[in-house]
Amino acid sequence: MSDQTAIEAKLRQVFEEGVAFNRVLGLKVESFDADAPKLRFDMKPEVIGNPRRQILHGGVISAVLDVAAGFAIHLAASKSRSEEPHDGHFPTIGTIDLRVDYLRPGRGTYFIATGRVVRLGNRVAVAHMDLVNDSGELIATGGAAYMVG
Amino acid sequence: MSDQTAIEAKLRQVFEEGVAFNRVLGLKVESFDADAPKLRFDMKPEVIGNPRRQILHGGVISAVLDVAAGFAIHLAASKSRSEEPHDGHFPTIGTIDLRVDYLRPGRGTYFIATGRVVRLGNRVAVAHMDLVNDSGELIATGGAAYMVG
Amino acid sequence: MSDQTAIEAKLRQVFEEGVAFNRVLGLKVESFDADAPKLRFDMKPEVIGNPRRQILHGGVISAVLDVAAGFAIHLAASKSRSEEPHDGHFPTIGTIDLRVDYLRPGRGTYFIATGRVVRLGNRVAVAHMDLVNDSGELIATGGAAYMVG
Amino acid sequence: MSDQTAIEAKLRQVFEEGVAFNRVLGLKVESFDADAPKLRFDMKPEVIGNPRRQILHGGVISAVLDVAAGFAIHLAASKSRSEEPHDGHFPTIGTIDLRVDYLRPGRGTYFIATGRVVRLGNRVAVAHMDLVNDSGELIATGGAAYMVG
Repeated sequence: MSDQTAIEAKLRQVFEEGVAFNRVLGLKVESFDADAPKLRFDMKPEVIGNPRRQILHGGVISAVLDVAAGFAIHLAASKSRSEEPHDGHFPTIGTIDLRVDYLRPGRGTYFIATGRVVRLGNRVAVAHMDLVNDSGELIATGGAAYMVG
Repeated sequence: MSDQTAIEAKLRQVFEEGVAFNRVLGLKVESFDADAPKLRFDMKPEVIGNPRRQILHGGVISAVLDVAAGFAIHLAASKSRSEEPHDGHFPTIGTIDLRVDYLRPGRGTYFIATGRVVRLGNRVAVAHMDLVNDSGELIATGGAAYMVG
Repeated sequence: MSDQTAIEAKLRQVFEEGVAFNRVLGLKVESFDADAPKLRFDMKPEVIGNPRRQILHGGVISAVLDVAAGFAIHLAASKSRSEEPHDGHFPTIGTIDLRVDYLRPGRGTYFIATGRVVRLGNRVAVAHMDLVNDSGELIATGGAAYMVG
Repeated sequence: MSDQTAIEAKLRQVFEEGVAFNRVLGLKVESFDADAPKLRFDMKPEVIGNPRRQILHGGVISAVLDVAAGFAIHLAASKSRSEEPHDGHFPTIGTIDLRVDYLRPGRGTYFIATGRVVRLGNRVAVAHMDLVNDSGELIATGGAAYMVG
């Protein structure tokens, strides 16, 4: 197993299985694309915010975008250190802040959250995120800043 | 039962029982104080983001602050219309955007989220929120804008 | 002169000449492209924040991104109403909130700010913005929500 | 002259005189209060955004809040190092991001911007800001994150 494959397997395991709240949301890694990694989750009762309208909870959207940003930054940080022997530990990152723009009601059968790293400094990383539904409609966008290293 | 008591009972039921995701988080109304209503939730495995460090998931923090803001605005909006006969329906509010500043790791046995309405217009409402732990330490602050009416 | 040309001439005059603070910044309309209109300004002493480092003032960046968002929304709103006779008045828009991510030091001889409308509702519009320097480096990104109508 | 007085005199000189854009805005130090330092500026044509309504430009508001946050963090950082001999240099701080909530139209004869440091870490500092007019009305609030050290 190559180093990169090992890193991806470990990242998938941490994000999908290791974090209880991600299991509640049902988050799965959809893509390890280096520039725009993706997570996916399905519509289900636990993620609904308005039972009458059957749309996503605003807090689920913010939570998923936060995870998508962290996932993108972990992936970018692990790639940028791929020369060094990998010891199975991921860098500790801490969220500084998070912003979400809610653009359309969260209707759909499944949803894809994408994170893109727009700045990867020695101390601070910034990611942009978006959430689309199974029709490709843009539900929300966001930005987040993290401490890294 | 007075109108205000009826509104509070209905709001509690909607927020605590009617929204599945709020039940996942374990959110309970702690205070109906008009200026600074509060929600409470307990530390438990489902809300942890980093199993090694046993701290709150950043997405849980953003989700709880989103609910606290919505709760404060619903409460303020229902009070500002208390002259009219109350029909059991709450105004439809839609989140425009949400921001969270993460100030300290989310350690504690329980947490209190407070919402404060800083602008209640005909079309747009704005709330500020904060989250403290059981020791009163400030974990996070936030702001959110909503469409109302 | 066509209606569209008249609208553009009027918009240019309002943004470049009618608003004193825009004159201080030296903002000029660079493009009326409907999807991504652009403003431009030159480096000059009045926009510098750190005399030693000769980089843009953070407040100048936030101010320019705010104007770029408002410009994009005015342009989109005027186009979406182009069926109606145009009376020379622009819709009143009010900023609800603004966020800026500072990605790189603001070095350059001139700068281009682009606004993109990502939501144009009856009541609320949302725009994303970015600022690049004369080398095409991304200096900052932002988002803003506005009341319209 | 005590060290603290010397630091304040230097900070005042840098913020009021050293930065050209601050001079354009007409910013003056109103208070060196450690918990909530204040800047002041007067209404004048250069800061108006809407000539018909005679209200502050949204970009002026964001710019002033950015300066108020940086001022509060510089002041807090210089106090936290007051044991060390002061060499006349201030720590380099870089804005990570900035958010502004616009709550009321910016009417008034003068305005006071206050910054409050809510987190002062080794690497990241966070401030909350507000802007009031000469009647004490809250015009805008904001938050900003900075790299320090």
